[in-house]
Amino acid sequence: MMRGKGWDAVILTGSDPHSSEYPAPRWKQVEWLTGFTGEAGDVVVTLDHAGLWTDTRYFIAANRQLAGTGVELHKLRVPEQVPIPQWLAENFGAEDPVIAIDSLCQNVAAVSEIEAAFGSAPFSIVGIPDLLNPLWPERPAVPQTPISVLDDASAGLSREAKILWARQFISNNDCEGILFTSLDEIAWMLNVRASDIDYNPYVISYLLVTQERVIWFVLKDHSEDPETDGTFDLLVSEGIELLPYGDVALVLSQEFEGSLFVDPSTLNREIAEAISDAQINMVQGRSPVILRKSIKNPVEIEGMRRAHVEDGVAMEKFLYWLEKSVAAGETVTEKDAADYLGRMRAQIDGYRGDSFETISAYGEGAALPHYVTPKENAPVLEAHGLYLCDSGGQYVFGTTDITRTVPLGPCTPLEREDYTLVLKGHIALAKAVFPRGTAGCQLDVLAREPLWSCKRNFGHGTGHGVGFWLGVHEGPQDIRQNFNTQALLPGMITSDEPGIYREGQHGVRHENLILCKEAGANDFGDWLCFESLTLCHFDTSIIEKGLLDTNEVAWLNAYNERVYNALAPRLPSDIASWLREKTRAI
Amino acid sequence: MMRGKGWDAVILTGSDPHSSEYPAPRWKQVEWLTGFTGEAGDVVVTLDHAGLWTDTRYFIAANRQLAGTGVELHKLRVPEQVPIPQWLAENFGAEDPVIAIDSLCQNVAAVSEIEAAFGSAPFSIVGIPDLLNPLWPERPAVPQTPISVLDDASAGLSREAKILWARQFISNNDCEGILFTSLDEIAWMLNVRASDIDYNPYVISYLLVTQERVIWFVLKDHSEDPETDGTFDLLVSEGIELLPYGDVALVLSQEFEGSLFVDPSTLNREIAEAISDAQINMVQGRSPVILRKSIKNPVEIEGMRRAHVEDGVAMEKFLYWLEKSVAAGETVTEKDAADYLGRMRAQIDGYRGDSFETISAYGEGAALPHYVTPKENAPVLEAHGLYLCDSGGQYVFGTTDITRTVPLGPCTPLEREDYTLVLKGHIALAKAVFPRGTAGCQLDVLAREPLWSCKRNFGHGTGHGVGFWLGVHEGPQDIRQNFNTQALLPGMITSDEPGIYREGQHGVRHENLILCKEAGANDFGDWLCFESLTLCHFDTSIIEKGLLDTNEVAWLNAYNERVYNALAPRLPSDIASWLREKTRAI
Repeated sequence: MMRGKGWDAVILTGSDPHSSEYPAPRWKQVEWLTGFTGEAGDVVVTLDHAGLWTDTRYFIAANRQLAGTGVELHKLRVPEQVPIPQWLAENFGAEDPVIAIDSLCQNVAAVSEIEAAFGSAPFSIVGIPDLLNPLWPERPAVPQTPISVLDDASAGLSREAKILWARQFISNNDCEGILFTSLDEIAWMLNVRASDIDYNPYVISYLLVTQERVIWFVLKDHSEDPETDGTFDLLVSEGIELLPYGDVALVLSQEFEGSLFVDPSTLNREIAEAISDAQINMVQGRSPVILRKSIKNPVEIEGMRRAHVEDGVAMEKFLYWLEKSVAAGETVTEKDAADYLGRMRAQIDGYRGDSFETISAYGEGAALPHYVTPKENAPVLEAHGLYLCDSGGQYVFGTTDITRTVPLGPCTPLEREDYTLVLKGHIALAKAVFPRGTAGCQLDVLAREPLWSCKRNFGHGTGHGVGFWLGVHEGPQDIRQNFNTQALLPGMITSDEPGIYREGQHGVRHENLILCKEAGANDFGDWLCFESLTLCHFDTSIIEKGLLDTNEVAWLNAYNERVYNALAPRLPSDIASWLREKTRAI
Repeated sequence: MMRGKGWDAVILTGSDPHSSEYPAPRWKQVEWLTGFTGEAGDVVVTLDHAGLWTDTRYFIAANRQLAGTGVELHKLRVPEQVPIPQWLAENFGAEDPVIAIDSLCQNVAAVSEIEAAFGSAPFSIVGIPDLLNPLWPERPAVPQTPISVLDDASAGLSREAKILWARQFISNNDCEGILFTSLDEIAWMLNVRASDIDYNPYVISYLLVTQERVIWFVLKDHSEDPETDGTFDLLVSEGIELLPYGDVALVLSQEFEGSLFVDPSTLNREIAEAISDAQINMVQGRSPVILRKSIKNPVEIEGMRRAHVEDGVAMEKFLYWLEKSVAAGETVTEKDAADYLGRMRAQIDGYRGDSFETISAYGEGAALPHYVTPKENAPVLEAHGLYLCDSGGQYVFGTTDITRTVPLGPCTPLEREDYTLVLKGHIALAKAVFPRGTAGCQLDVLAREPLWSCKRNFGHGTGHGVGFWLGVHEGPQDIRQNFNTQALLPGMITSDEPGIYREGQHGVRHENLILCKEAGANDFGDWLCFESLTLCHFDTSIIEKGLLDTNEVAWLNAYNERVYNALAPRLPSDIASWLREKTRAI
């Protein structure tokens, strides 16, 4: 196809027309092409090379999955990295290449990076929507799952208020409209949820807000269902126009005039070109929803607290069963364990699925931070060493994400030491007090220094933002070794998840979600701290107590006591008794 | 003058033609104009306003010194700051103002910021060298002090090697030459020292290096002295050309062709204009000397270690005398104490003056991080509370910078607590272990969290780079709450100086210099740590031991023991015995 078209290179991204972190099957182009299943990967194919670009999290999986395919791994997030734009510029130099992209799946910011890398060197970009279609007859359709609404009392802020706020933003920015292209932003703006993407309760759509109109580009070719019909009726009754998903470029071209605010990090090249062609002035900037959405309102905060009580009950039932089953010599695989936990969550009223695919990993499997539990022939848990489970639930009142690492029997001194050091790191961040204005990257070292002082470390971030019944990953804040200047603000929720991974041996990660909140003011400033939202005990049986200082022990005992008090009344008595023992002060 | 010339605004900086942090008296224009003596301050005068811009360190001094002058304080390093470029743009809007600057004292980067702030709004800049001369008949001349050379054995890297390295840099950057404009860079390049600026052993000059020539623009109008004559003879014998200081623009215009590498952060506007007018292509970037100079070579590291032994002897003699004198009821003022310490340092062979003006501050004086000890009628020390001394020496083998806070008698519980918390912060940074690639801003929180956890903080950076017999402040690394991405590298020296300041009460600061060095490698990475260079005991008598954990106590005891072992053999026996008691393990 490339030779026929005269293309020198084709870029395919692992994302969708909305730059989603996790795309629906229709847009798993990289997986279709290369077999690589990691959650972040882009591909460049030239006439004599095929390369996959992914980051540290997926090197081991990529090496395994790409073996024998002829596709070469290009490493990102390493000091010597050569990202795609630089690689293209270096490899095609002054050859004036024709670079084909799937213009739906490449965002404006990514195209700008290619342009910057080439500088004054000649090249051209050919944008083809759904470029792979001719080669991929069985390609899945654009998904369309039932859509529901959150009522105002459950969302904490009405659609009407959010639209008014967006209109204020438009006029502050001297624009006539704003086009929302990111799926979590659209879900937040309209207080709607669906399950068009696994684990992510989004509706694949675009949203245009002007001073006079609100147009939701959401209608697709499939049949509707009653729930969605009700949602649509409600929105139409509020004056929101519903138009076909594929019509956004056409409608903008024909019906919009003036300046349009867009976010180049999620606006795809196909629509951007249509906007340009229609002589619409694009004002590019970060969508205001990103920050606003990250600061949870009181209803969302209460919902998240409730979600963590419910989720904690499921977790404790799971950990109880796990301990008893393994101790009894029953055959339990990693997959069995994940399934059992899923069933415990499914008992919760308001559960709408998991927030990501459960990582259920025993022993050396846990040494892979992004281990994928095999669906068939998963490893059997043994009555010794460490088992790690990283999972979360989506509830109509909140989203959870928790990792617990537990001993299944005797552990080695190194396992105990790693377990304790990671807990020290977790606690140091959880109990941090810091002045207003502090960014996550300025706190990250708190979770690492207990590990660093023993010359251990982990290769992923310490904390990511978490949405309210939305994506389990969201910005703009994070807690990691980058230089993200976004201050942590009251109402933001992030994870706290340090780890230690020893390839071929074991892995440890301890993760709670933490809520940033106010901690008073004095002559020295205005103070913030965290509340641990997650409620599930930390196993104390393998702690090397000599490694903890008195403040850390006090934190741990108080946390476990809080877990017991919150969960015991909701647990069967045998599990409550067991939890009483598990949460005894050390 | 402004009305006569048709100027709408005049900008005067607190710096010199080399963007030096501390200028010679000739360039203390801001002090001459406003009376403000802080080390960082710029002035804008319009026809109806005069404003001084300075940062948090100097607000208290500025308010006092500007009172009654009609000059208004504009605050920098505060969230609501409006720096000069923005202020000009906001105040003159579309009025097409004529802005006059002293083109010698405004660097290219600063002018670019003004241009960026105005954007497309019209304005013009008039550059006048020595703009203030007509109003300031007694203005001091360009200083010219005796110049000496460091021989290669003392510098660790010869002039010849440095020039070869600079020539490699030139050709790597496709340039025909590099103009060094920063005084510390020139001193480092040529291995020369003088004392043209108080506390800073620099030679006011410019240095041009091309593939064929090395031209030092250094000759001034004053008579020479024998030491300098010898230096000049040596340099000329090596083929270095010496030309008048004022001729740099003329010589570049007439004798240089091609591309010239310049650093816009220290290149002044006057020379930049001359370069532009001569059609020379300016390649702007950060001077390569900045990073290279910050990574001390083995000779420099050994020299710094030696300097800290010598300096430690002076400090211990001083602290012994101080304690005995105050306890004996003698009248000792802050100034007396600073003078005594100066005399102890002056006894050291190789001493070339202090590295900055000693801050000798008792009680509430110490609550000002940048307190200036009065020359007349300085406060008398009393036999209670805390005394703080921040000082340093310049030696031909290194530079020191140390702060000790010591009790002069009984202390309040709050003084003891603040003293101990600051020490916890100091120790946490000093004993940090971190992976290669870590930047100072990623470690800064280690020194702050012990304070933050008690809702206390300090308003200055934790650590600044320190030169080798050069400036006591140098880049590119630092340890502070900024987002400076420069990694700490083996061979870099920074300070470690957390503090707590309570206005009207007391101040605590504990400062050592720390050397970044390698700490081995393992599966988790390549590790770095710090060596504390400074050798002077920390007083343990007022420590609240309950606030220290066992690791902190172990660090403190080991440090004090190391101090005793290093210094006792060089101290008179009475002071050595006293130090033995002072350094007993707690």
